[in-house]
Amino acid sequence: MEYGEMCRQELEELRSRLRMEYEEAKSRGLSLDMSRGNPSPSQLRMGQDLLDACPDVDRLFSEDGVDCRNYGCPGGLRELRELFGSIIGVPASNVYIGGVSSLNMMFDTVSRAMLKGLAGSPEPWGRLDEVKFICPVPGYDRHLSILEYFGIEMIPFPLTGEGPDMDEVERIASSDPAVKGMWIVPIYSNPSGDVYSQETLRRIASMETAAPDFTVFCDDAYPLHALYGEYEKPLTLFSECAGAGHPDRAIFFTSFSKVTFAGGSVCCVAGGDRTMELARKWFSVQVITHDKVNQLRHIRVLKDVEGVKERMDRHAAIIRPKFELVEQIFERELGGTGIASWNKPRGGYFIGLRLNCSARRVVSLCADAGVKLTPAGAGFPHGTDPSDGFLRIAPTYPSMEDLERAAELLCICVRLAACEKLLCE
Amino acid sequence: MEYGEMCRQELEELRSRLRMEYEEAKSRGLSLDMSRGNPSPSQLRMGQDLLDACPDVDRLFSEDGVDCRNYGCPGGLRELRELFGSIIGVPASNVYIGGVSSLNMMFDTVSRAMLKGLAGSPEPWGRLDEVKFICPVPGYDRHLSILEYFGIEMIPFPLTGEGPDMDEVERIASSDPAVKGMWIVPIYSNPSGDVYSQETLRRIASMETAAPDFTVFCDDAYPLHALYGEYEKPLTLFSECAGAGHPDRAIFFTSFSKVTFAGGSVCCVAGGDRTMELARKWFSVQVITHDKVNQLRHIRVLKDVEGVKERMDRHAAIIRPKFELVEQIFERELGGTGIASWNKPRGGYFIGLRLNCSARRVVSLCADAGVKLTPAGAGFPHGTDPSDGFLRIAPTYPSMEDLERAAELLCICVRLAACEKLLCE
Repeated sequence: MEYGEMCRQELEELRSRLRMEYEEAKSRGLSLDMSRGNPSPSQLRMGQDLLDACPDVDRLFSEDGVDCRNYGCPGGLRELRELFGSIIGVPASNVYIGGVSSLNMMFDTVSRAMLKGLAGSPEPWGRLDEVKFICPVPGYDRHLSILEYFGIEMIPFPLTGEGPDMDEVERIASSDPAVKGMWIVPIYSNPSGDVYSQETLRRIASMETAAPDFTVFCDDAYPLHALYGEYEKPLTLFSECAGAGHPDRAIFFTSFSKVTFAGGSVCCVAGGDRTMELARKWFSVQVITHDKVNQLRHIRVLKDVEGVKERMDRHAAIIRPKFELVEQIFERELGGTGIASWNKPRGGYFIGLRLNCSARRVVSLCADAGVKLTPAGAGFPHGTDPSDGFLRIAPTYPSMEDLERAAELLCICVRLAACEKLLCE
Repeated sequence: MEYGEMCRQELEELRSRLRMEYEEAKSRGLSLDMSRGNPSPSQLRMGQDLLDACPDVDRLFSEDGVDCRNYGCPGGLRELRELFGSIIGVPASNVYIGGVSSLNMMFDTVSRAMLKGLAGSPEPWGRLDEVKFICPVPGYDRHLSILEYFGIEMIPFPLTGEGPDMDEVERIASSDPAVKGMWIVPIYSNPSGDVYSQETLRRIASMETAAPDFTVFCDDAYPLHALYGEYEKPLTLFSECAGAGHPDRAIFFTSFSKVTFAGGSVCCVAGGDRTMELARKWFSVQVITHDKVNQLRHIRVLKDVEGVKERMDRHAAIIRPKFELVEQIFERELGGTGIASWNKPRGGYFIGLRLNCSARRVVSLCADAGVKLTPAGAGFPHGTDPSDGFLRIAPTYPSMEDLERAAELLCICVRLAACEKLLCE
């Protein structure tokens, strides 16, 4: 029954019953951290082949004869640049391999923009009175933290399911020269699950911008992270940008953090010729070489795009049941109540739960009962969701048993918070 | 015989003979890159134990139970922080483990100073009209490149054998508020081999500075890189600074790049409480976690300071004969000529060769005969040594056979350049 159609007495009775259910759930002594999108131990166990990939210290040479144990080859092994390039749709010559963290590459790119400017910058962003960014919301909280740390103003744009409203994006980008950039997670966006449409990407590539150095920070975090084997095609954004006469419009980031070891894999940055010329200048001063032994392990294990897909199929076999379990519990407990809706992602790491009650209240109730969720508002500028109505659910880490109890608790909390809200109105 | 005492005819005859020797050496078709301080294949082969250290994907947990395969534990494994801390003389709680590159940490710290300021900074350095650094010379070229990249003015200070002239350093640091920092490589300084005396370090720790955020960038790159088993004691600079009421005076950097794999090891940054508070804030936005699997490999293989020393003994057994070979050839070919002098380092990676002729000319002659040396002037601001009289010799990488031929060629080139110079005067 829709909660909105209940009379006061029904709501009060429901609230009492939910309070009892909540206390009972609380007494079970759950202790579960679902705040981040961490792979589960079963997924991490797949990394045995990575540990086995380089057994012999005399055979740590790349196909081109690079000695991976020593300095040199700062941009990374060619074969790995080719693999990354084929995933993100950028020529291997325009791919630079970094360390374990694509976030680090994004942070450094913003840092570089502040200190030196990017391709086409009349001056470093740090010298300007104001710098603004278009931020599709809900977005990845760590993208927003970078902007906040550097004092960049964030303009939130609600996601529609296939990216932000492009009419609005075009209007702002073309009219305000202080708008210097935009975050996008084009495939299985964190946390909404949006997959940007070809049309959206085409418009991002071709739109007029008031700033000559308007830059799309394209975090292609989940390019092959399909739950149902429906792999997205490689991004066409790079070629779209080049075709539209904006070869340096977008900078691309990705990693194998959720392919091999989280925090122990390899990442890359890629972009247009001028972008990479400037980036390489920075890197040439910053670092002598990244970890080529780890690069070698990755290319030996993953081999090519098909190798990555084969591995992602095995990941999906582990995590798909978790997504489906949460969706089933949501359907069973929240379906037809009118108090919540959620997406059914075809890939990525998150389920987005939209609420007609206070997300903060739900997070607080869950925390008191031992389940730590991603903070409400985390995907919004400065951690504040004006509607206080969105939660990011990360189902991958817990066991099925823990996940079931956590999802049930979550539903009790959502229903209780919804009753409380309706009774207060 | 001293070249300076030769008459013109003797010099001309010598030059003719040397030209013939040079042409003969050239015809041998050497092809050797001695420009960087790279470990040799024999040293790198010692890394087999690192490859073997983590064979089992189910046993990638630290002593504290940290799952090294997943996100989390951003500051690095406690046991590795303890090991680094005991080497550089900083409490483990004030050590942050990074990726493979301590240079990256140094670059990021300067970058952070420019964008946000360091402990005690009234404002970010990037907002100031001028920022200056005290640079002991010859120094590490990559330290200087960082300053050049960020437009920081470099004030060169000649090294004396146990650090720079501290009277001068104190005078400049105490009188000019634009002087914000200073590089030091306190042990086996790259490339001069200077070991900073206790008195020098004490004065660096206690001196008055005009800038409230004057910061010593202490690159302790070779703390246990002894060639003769005479290990230096851990640095006392951290405690000296604290004792002098300047707990954030120095920031420390080191890595195991020349202990395990060059560019495939682990590094750290360390400093006072406020320094680390600010650094951790930066890191918390920049990166989720560094590569803890690699951290685990390192702590398992190296274990403790004694373990590192035992390994450095094995490195020394490989590279000490190379240092001694070069010194013998220098003594045989250049001894008593009055045209060159060199240090006999007790550790580190380089021999400093001081010339009474043009270092550039020597580098060029060597290059034409197939031996690439570190560019003349590399250890000086903007790559320019005003006296054009210093060369950094990196003897570790070549085989003994190659090294002998290269050192002999180098001596021919030095002698030839000296003759040329004397004949021009």
